[in-house]
Amino acid sequence: MQKTMVAVVKPEPKAGSEIREVKVPSYGPRDVLVKVKVASICGTDLHIYDWDQWAAGRIKPPLVPGHEFCGNVVAVGDEVTTVKEGDFVSAEMHVACGKCYQCRIGEAHICPNVKILGVDEDGAFAEYVRIPESNIWKIDPSIPPDYASLLDPLGNAVYTVLSGEIAACSVAIVGCGPIGLFAIAVARACGATQVFALEPNEHRAGLAKKMKADVVIDPTKQDAKQIILDATNGVGADVVLEMSGKTPGIRTGFDILRAGGRVSMLGTPSKPVELDLAKSIIFKGATVIGIHGRLMYKTWFQMQNLLKAGKLDLSPVITDRIPMKDFSKGMDRLKTGESSKILLYPNGLK
Amino acid sequence: MQKTMVAVVKPEPKAGSEIREVKVPSYGPRDVLVKVKVASICGTDLHIYDWDQWAAGRIKPPLVPGHEFCGNVVAVGDEVTTVKEGDFVSAEMHVACGKCYQCRIGEAHICPNVKILGVDEDGAFAEYVRIPESNIWKIDPSIPPDYASLLDPLGNAVYTVLSGEIAACSVAIVGCGPIGLFAIAVARACGATQVFALEPNEHRAGLAKKMKADVVIDPTKQDAKQIILDATNGVGADVVLEMSGKTPGIRTGFDILRAGGRVSMLGTPSKPVELDLAKSIIFKGATVIGIHGRLMYKTWFQMQNLLKAGKLDLSPVITDRIPMKDFSKGMDRLKTGESSKILLYPNGLK
Amino acid sequence: MQKTMVAVVKPEPKAGSEIREVKVPSYGPRDVLVKVKVASICGTDLHIYDWDQWAAGRIKPPLVPGHEFCGNVVAVGDEVTTVKEGDFVSAEMHVACGKCYQCRIGEAHICPNVKILGVDEDGAFAEYVRIPESNIWKIDPSIPPDYASLLDPLGNAVYTVLSGEIAACSVAIVGCGPIGLFAIAVARACGATQVFALEPNEHRAGLAKKMKADVVIDPTKQDAKQIILDATNGVGADVVLEMSGKTPGIRTGFDILRAGGRVSMLGTPSKPVELDLAKSIIFKGATVIGIHGRLMYKTWFQMQNLLKAGKLDLSPVITDRIPMKDFSKGMDRLKTGESSKILLYPNGLK
Amino acid sequence: MQKTMVAVVKPEPKAGSEIREVKVPSYGPRDVLVKVKVASICGTDLHIYDWDQWAAGRIKPPLVPGHEFCGNVVAVGDEVTTVKEGDFVSAEMHVACGKCYQCRIGEAHICPNVKILGVDEDGAFAEYVRIPESNIWKIDPSIPPDYASLLDPLGNAVYTVLSGEIAACSVAIVGCGPIGLFAIAVARACGATQVFALEPNEHRAGLAKKMKADVVIDPTKQDAKQIILDATNGVGADVVLEMSGKTPGIRTGFDILRAGGRVSMLGTPSKPVELDLAKSIIFKGATVIGIHGRLMYKTWFQMQNLLKAGKLDLSPVITDRIPMKDFSKGMDRLKTGESSKILLYPNGLK
Repeated sequence: MQKTMVAVVKPEPKAGSEIREVKVPSYGPRDVLVKVKVASICGTDLHIYDWDQWAAGRIKPPLVPGHEFCGNVVAVGDEVTTVKEGDFVSAEMHVACGKCYQCRIGEAHICPNVKILGVDEDGAFAEYVRIPESNIWKIDPSIPPDYASLLDPLGNAVYTVLSGEIAACSVAIVGCGPIGLFAIAVARACGATQVFALEPNEHRAGLAKKMKADVVIDPTKQDAKQIILDATNGVGADVVLEMSGKTPGIRTGFDILRAGGRVSMLGTPSKPVELDLAKSIIFKGATVIGIHGRLMYKTWFQMQNLLKAGKLDLSPVITDRIPMKDFSKGMDRLKTGESSKILLYPNGLK
Repeated sequence: MQKTMVAVVKPEPKAGSEIREVKVPSYGPRDVLVKVKVASICGTDLHIYDWDQWAAGRIKPPLVPGHEFCGNVVAVGDEVTTVKEGDFVSAEMHVACGKCYQCRIGEAHICPNVKILGVDEDGAFAEYVRIPESNIWKIDPSIPPDYASLLDPLGNAVYTVLSGEIAACSVAIVGCGPIGLFAIAVARACGATQVFALEPNEHRAGLAKKMKADVVIDPTKQDAKQIILDATNGVGADVVLEMSGKTPGIRTGFDILRAGGRVSMLGTPSKPVELDLAKSIIFKGATVIGIHGRLMYKTWFQMQNLLKAGKLDLSPVITDRIPMKDFSKGMDRLKTGESSKILLYPNGLK
Repeated sequence: MQKTMVAVVKPEPKAGSEIREVKVPSYGPRDVLVKVKVASICGTDLHIYDWDQWAAGRIKPPLVPGHEFCGNVVAVGDEVTTVKEGDFVSAEMHVACGKCYQCRIGEAHICPNVKILGVDEDGAFAEYVRIPESNIWKIDPSIPPDYASLLDPLGNAVYTVLSGEIAACSVAIVGCGPIGLFAIAVARACGATQVFALEPNEHRAGLAKKMKADVVIDPTKQDAKQIILDATNGVGADVVLEMSGKTPGIRTGFDILRAGGRVSMLGTPSKPVELDLAKSIIFKGATVIGIHGRLMYKTWFQMQNLLKAGKLDLSPVITDRIPMKDFSKGMDRLKTGESSKILLYPNGLK
Repeated sequence: MQKTMVAVVKPEPKAGSEIREVKVPSYGPRDVLVKVKVASICGTDLHIYDWDQWAAGRIKPPLVPGHEFCGNVVAVGDEVTTVKEGDFVSAEMHVACGKCYQCRIGEAHICPNVKILGVDEDGAFAEYVRIPESNIWKIDPSIPPDYASLLDPLGNAVYTVLSGEIAACSVAIVGCGPIGLFAIAVARACGATQVFALEPNEHRAGLAKKMKADVVIDPTKQDAKQIILDATNGVGADVVLEMSGKTPGIRTGFDILRAGGRVSMLGTPSKPVELDLAKSIIFKGATVIGIHGRLMYKTWFQMQNLLKAGKLDLSPVITDRIPMKDFSKGMDRLKTGESSKILLYPNGLK
């Protein structure tokens, strides 16, 4: 097997990245080495690329970023029993410690000692990536590789939608980045009976329509609350999925929620938000659920079941497919706001 | 308004029934009088018709049976505020006492003092029926009358399916009478990713296929357990909906359930059942939910939302439409096992 | 029976109140007339007395305030069946409409059409009060009248504590007004294994100790987070009950919460609060529950069960007992911050 | 360190056991070797001793039985990080596979591939026992060794009690073997407001009184249903904990349950049970929860919290303390029905 490989590398603590020849990762007795077939770019990768405040505080260059991917196993450590060479896999890139309180009570997705591959250690924007066996996810062969590269963010959407009742509910999705768009499909597939998508960006709003949201609202131009009250017999939305991470989106989300409804919050605001808690949460008897990552591994099974059953059409969200060497162009493209999911092919587009 | 009306009447404590001219019901200040447009026959009506042991112990003739219907309001009592003449309505025919422990903690569907219209008091197999305002359900005009006559049993199915997790689950429905058939549609609409239908009767099995069950199994001829294990990666069904009320069905239901799964039981066995509780429930860590009626009125909202959203195609379940005067023929037809839902039109087929 | 009675009256839209002779309330066929034995003063009564912004926007004088009380039935309307003259009762003073979405799905405590007796209509600071039968609560005779006058705020505490897991949990109660103090007792009775009380006011902190909080913390002088982390093996509190309604309290509450924990919020901030939602809720995977009122009537049964079993010692919270005519002195006393629950005796102290 | 040790050994597939000198267990890189301080006898040990049908089908002699114990770590494998020599520990003796569906979704307690130490591999009735690090439980030093030897069955009780609502509930415990007796203490500690204990054996009934059950009923001589209806205002028990595993106990359990109540079943019947499912579960809207083992490791944390808080007095359940060499006498003693928990001291009584 080859000793070196091509990878996207953040070489130093500053903006930008390079395409470089680096060593193929070594692997230990409980590790799996995967040849990456498709990887997918996340907003987090842009933070790392742009070296914003969050990135500067967390990332230790040199680093190979990338935490969304699929590929085939090329080698396994001596103690690995659940996958073998050739298996088609993805991975949960949040590597939990397994020993803390949260891990031991079944809440590994919020392990305080988590290490994220592609953030804290080398990730998947490379020809090969090393993954601990515990975190490998075997992909059902009926799932196409492009979809299989999206399991990480799709899992965010599935966990968010299913973090409370959804069947026969009206649901408003605030913010239609890729996870918001996925959430439209997931909510519909899981029995939501009215799906409102709130999104000011025209391109994203167009995608929300393609994902079959019942009503797409530009909250900067339309009265989202009135539209939703009118459509729900004056009650409001049973469920709000906060995917924008923006103050106006968050406030609107609580505003359109029915008394007794649920808000699941995934979008992460970059600064504190001023909220009227009395009106938004307390008098409303609202339930608010903070969403981080995906359940390990319940969400993965749910997601795989939905994909295998053909319940999710994700194709509109995949707007770009580029060779991995064009990573920087992908970053530029992402900033235009006219793309959604950009796929990379570290080992060629075939 | 007319003083008398035509109705199906159980005149005496013995088998059979008559079509008779009876008085149009009087109504009190909190009652609603409804002109019945479509009514639907339930298995319970057959028990009453045949005057079986259960009927003999409960029914006090003379009685107008019928507890599944829709129609239009023709008159309301002085204190009624939520409906008016002309409104298109159905009703929850379980009239709870409103004062017992269960009623006061939000469990009115299992009120020990419940009176069922069509069982304990006059029901809907008549040109007119009297309903207390509290139990009236206003039907969204987008819902066609034939479907609207089915809300009672559809509500059973919705409550059963939604009495636990269903999205992204594999579900086995044991017994494909009308409620089992409805449950196929509801489970699919609410995100079940594999729907197994178990039914030995060929006609019902055919309807289960029309309802789009993924796999229809004749458990008397096929190895249901092996088929389901093979289809679920050796795990078993996440959810079992027991709709047969028969000992073999109940045992098979527990047998095909995965460890940690849920069984919701609606079919009511007529005699005690011998069960290996250690294997079926205890070692399996199973959850078993007894289902009676429908939640008042959460299930009704859920059902209406699903129907309005066009998520349920109930048409294969409606096998017969007959004039009310042919009620006895309907009973005969039901006994053939070659019909499912039979609709009656007390005020004409139009 | 007498035609007039003595009552506390808010006569005009301005601060203050009067003790006045007013008509004994008339009652309809479904009403119950109660002779008030003990009433209790709530913070809301102070808002009305002081005529703050909230009061000016909501209250329509003349009004008899008071929504916490117990007494004996002296007369019932013709249709009343569940109570009779002489019965010892209290009441849920939130009169829900019974017809809205929330009421019909079992969430009457957040009915958007609620009328509160003592706020929107005449209340219990009077010799007699009229209550609809639906809202009457028969009190178990083993419960002493002083405690029985506290069921409304005790119900707030019971609902807050039981709005999620509590057994074997560490719980931090932020703010030790009467409801916070009750919550200490309720949490202990329901199996909380560590109870932290956070309260800067010295008098209230002293009461928290009398209620047997394990640790009482002055968050303005002590490092609440460090104390709680040290006491919970570095994990943080499983449950936080927000009873302060103050920005620093709310922020501290989220700060001391463990990842995956629950915050139930009852204290109502008078203005918007700036919160770091990413850190407080999203990354933490927190669950936040807005608490309004008490469940109708599940909370009432729970509360009665706890009181009957002798599991709650509420005596430290009752700091003052005064005749009703001294209501204004009660208001002054409340403002000192050195009282907690002040009881009134509209029909004499005996 | 010594090479051999004294242990209870089932040498051959027949009744009885021997006290033998055997090798001290070797241990691998992820194992922990524990010097046993106190062990406790379970009913399962009697099945093995008597070599009943279940034992004959499962046990592969030679075997060291024993799965309830505490002790001190004497050696750890190279990769062990969470415990060290000298630590006071117990262990979850159900060793789950970690790789199946149940394990990966947080339901390891019902792992279909589980191996139980003391049943499938050597256990704790010996001077030393080997445990995988994953299953070691560090015991808070405030917990006395005798109690610490009981965590396995106490965990069964904690899991059973907390498998649904318990605070402010009436609860009936059917069968007062050790786990039933523990459940009395746990239910009381977690806010149950009425605890009924049903037990025909006089000695056990006496222990139930010592555990502070509110009412102890001999269901073979008293009308359990009437007593419980009378004490619950005609409603029945909110919660039933089935700990008897006997047909009459199981039937009585369902009979005394309120409509809408919960039955958690832990006692395992040795043969199928005939049940009136319509009356017991379906019309009642009952929830039935099968209980196997304890949650890994949520139950362990809950149990430790309750013990540390001093909420559980287990002392009445410990009826006998004997040297390990008297194991056979312990078996005889257990059969008298006049003992409850019998503790063994493999390394001396001190």
